Amino acid sequence: MFYCTEKRSWPRKIFSGIQPTGSLHIGNYLGAISRWVDLQNAGENVTYCIVDLHSITLPQDPGRLQQNITLMTAALLACGIDPKKSTLFLQSDVRQHAELGWILGCLTTMARLGHLPQFKEKSSKLKDIPLGIFVYPVLQAADILLYKATHVPVGEDQVQHLQLAQHLAKIFNTKFGITFPHCHALVSEDLSNRIKSLRDPTKKMSKSDPDPKATILLTDSPNIVAEKVRKAITDFTSEVTFDPENRPGVSNLITIHSLMNGKSPEEICSSNTDVDTGKYKGRVAEAVVEHLNPIRKRIEEYLQHPDYLRQVLEEGGHKAALLAEETLQEVKDRMGLGRTGTR
Amino acid sequence: MFYCTEKRSWPRKIFSGIQPTGSLHIGNYLGAISRWVDLQNAGENVTYCIVDLHSITLPQDPGRLQQNITLMTAALLACGIDPKKSTLFLQSDVRQHAELGWILGCLTTMARLGHLPQFKEKSSKLKDIPLGIFVYPVLQAADILLYKATHVPVGEDQVQHLQLAQHLAKIFNTKFGITFPHCHALVSEDLSNRIKSLRDPTKKMSKSDPDPKATILLTDSPNIVAEKVRKAITDFTSEVTFDPENRPGVSNLITIHSLMNGKSPEEICSSNTDVDTGKYKGRVAEAVVEHLNPIRKRIEEYLQHPDYLRQVLEEGGHKAALLAEETLQEVKDRMGLGRTGTR
Repeated sequence: MFYCTEKRSWPRKIFSGIQPTGSLHIGNYLGAISRWVDLQNAGENVTYCIVDLHSITLPQDPGRLQQNITLMTAALLACGIDPKKSTLFLQSDVRQHAELGWILGCLTTMARLGHLPQFKEKSSKLKDIPLGIFVYPVLQAADILLYKATHVPVGEDQVQHLQLAQHLAKIFNTKFGITFPHCHALVSEDLSNRIKSLRDPTKKMSKSDPDPKATILLTDSPNIVAEKVRKAITDFTSEVTFDPENRPGVSNLITIHSLMNGKSPEEICSSNTDVDTGKYKGRVAEAVVEHLNPIRKRIEEYLQHPDYLRQVLEEGGHKAALLAEETLQEVKDRMGLGRTGTR
Repeated sequence: MFYCTEKRSWPRKIFSGIQPTGSLHIGNYLGAISRWVDLQNAGENVTYCIVDLHSITLPQDPGRLQQNITLMTAALLACGIDPKKSTLFLQSDVRQHAELGWILGCLTTMARLGHLPQFKEKSSKLKDIPLGIFVYPVLQAADILLYKATHVPVGEDQVQHLQLAQHLAKIFNTKFGITFPHCHALVSEDLSNRIKSLRDPTKKMSKSDPDPKATILLTDSPNIVAEKVRKAITDFTSEVTFDPENRPGVSNLITIHSLMNGKSPEEICSSNTDVDTGKYKGRVAEAVVEHLNPIRKRIEEYLQHPDYLRQVLEEGGHKAALLAEETLQEVKDRMGLGRTGTR
C-alpha cells in the first residue's frame, strides 16, 4: 500500500522545546524566545515545551535541575509567553512523550541514528557514550509528532535536526496509515548566531562559556550589565564604526544595541559620532538595561510565586496531554497495541 | 557518598513478563506459566505483565498483535493465573514503563548495552539492527525496577538477562540514594529446555519452528494433539526406553508424558513394557490431552468473553499503575525532574 502525506492537508501547528538550563542569555532570548513570542502573538497555534527529559541525557544535579525548571518557566512568562495563548508545559508531566518515544524507537535502526550529524558531533568528544545522546533525536521526534506539528522554528544551522522526525513520520504513515504530517522547519535567521561573546567576539555567546563576563543574562542587574559591557573586549580604535570583520568587538556591541532598540547599525553609528568606544559602552549598557530591566523584574516577580508557576505548568500539561493522548491512542490503535480492541 | 543496597531489607516481590506471541506451546506452559501459577498459589507477591511494548521491537502485524494480546490473556487465566491473587496487566496500559525506561536509559552507556549477550546474539544475524533490539533490556529493567521486584523467575540460561536491571539499580542508588532493591534471579531448572521439537528431537521446542507439527499448542484439539504425537519422529527400536542421548525422539515423548502425569521417566518406562513406540504414542497423546483439555476448554471459554478479558487487564493495569506511579514519583523527585517542587 502506498500513502502520500502530501495529499492530506493539516492544520498549521507550531511546536518547539527548550532545555531547562539555568538563566537565559540575550543570545537565547533574541534567537529563540522572542521568536516564540512573535509566533504566539501572530495568532499561531503554538505549543512550547520545557524538555526536562532531554536535559537528563547528560548528568544533572537534582536540586539545580529543579531550580532551572522554575527559572525557565519564570523567564518564558517574563519574556512574553502567555499561557492563555500558548500551550506551555513541562515534558515529564506529559507521559505520552516517553511512550511515543519508545514506540517510534522501534521503527528506526541503529545505523540511522548513528548517521545523524548531531550524534556524530556530540559523541566524537566522548569516550563512553551515554545512551541518551544516541536516542535523544527519537524523543525529539516524539515531542513534535505527538502534537502533529507542521512547523518547528529552528535556526539556519538546525534544519537537519528535524530529519529524524520527518523520516519517522513517513515510516509510520507508510506502515500504518497516514497519521502524522510532514513537519517543516520554520527557518529564520538565527540572531543568536550574530551575538558574540563579550570576552572573545570571534565566538558565539554561549551559556557554557566558563567566563561569566562573556554573556549577558536576562537576570543580570543593571550594575552587572553595565560592568559586563564596560569590560567587553574592543580594540584600540576609538571611533564607533560597524565592521564585524576587522572590528568584531565594537561591532558586536553595535549588533546588541541594534537588536535592543530596533535601529540599524548604520543609524546607531551615525548617532554615536560624538563619543569614543569607552563612552559608547555606557550607551549600549543603557539600551540593554532599558530592554531587559522589565523582563528581569518580571522574572523576579514570578520567582516570588512558585505556586503560580507550578499551576501554569500543570494547566499547560493538562492541555498538552489531551492532544498527546489523542495522538497516542491513534498510534496504539493503528499498531494493535493496548487493550482497546477496536480491531 | 556510598550507599549499599544490602543494608536495607526489601519485601519479597516477584515480577515476570511474557510477550503476546500467539498460542503458547507446552514448552512455554511447563517452563514458565506453570511456575508463575505455583508462585502465585504459594502466596507470593506476584506481578505478571504481558509485554506488548517489547513485542514491537520486531515488526508486528497490528491485527495479529491485538489477537495475540487477547489470546495470551485467555491462556494465562486458563493456566491458573488468578487476577485476585496476581497482578496481571498489559504493559502499554501502564505508562510508567516507558517513562522509567527513558530515565534509566539516560543512566547507561552504548558500550554497556552493546556488550549484553542478548544483543550480541540477536544482532549478529541482522544487517540493519532495529533500535528496539538494542534498547530492549533497558525497558526490561524498567519493568522490574518499577515494582521494586526482588526476584525474577528465569530459566537456568537466562540469569544474565537480569544483569542490566541489577546494574541500573546500583547506579541509581549510588547517584540518587537507595531506591531499588537488588533483583535476584529466581532460578529453577527450565523444563522447557527439556522439551524438544517433535520433528527434530535434538532441538528445543520453539514457537518459531516453521513446521507446525513440531510443537504442541495449548489450543490444539485432542485430534490434533494425537496426530502430532503420532507423527513425532522416533527411531527404529520398538521398545519404550528413556535414553535422551541415543534415543532423543522417544525420550522426548517420555519427558512430555512425565511432565503431564507427574510420574518419573523410569516409572513410565516400566509401565509401558507391553507396547511398542507406535502404540506408546497413543498413551502419550492421551496423557497430554487429559492434562491440556481442561486448559484448552477454559481458553475457548475466555475467548468467548473478550469484555471480561479486557476488564481483567484494566483492573490489573490500575493496580500496577498505583505501584508504578509511586516508584516513578520517587525517581523523579530524587532526580529533580517534574514540577513537584519538593526540593
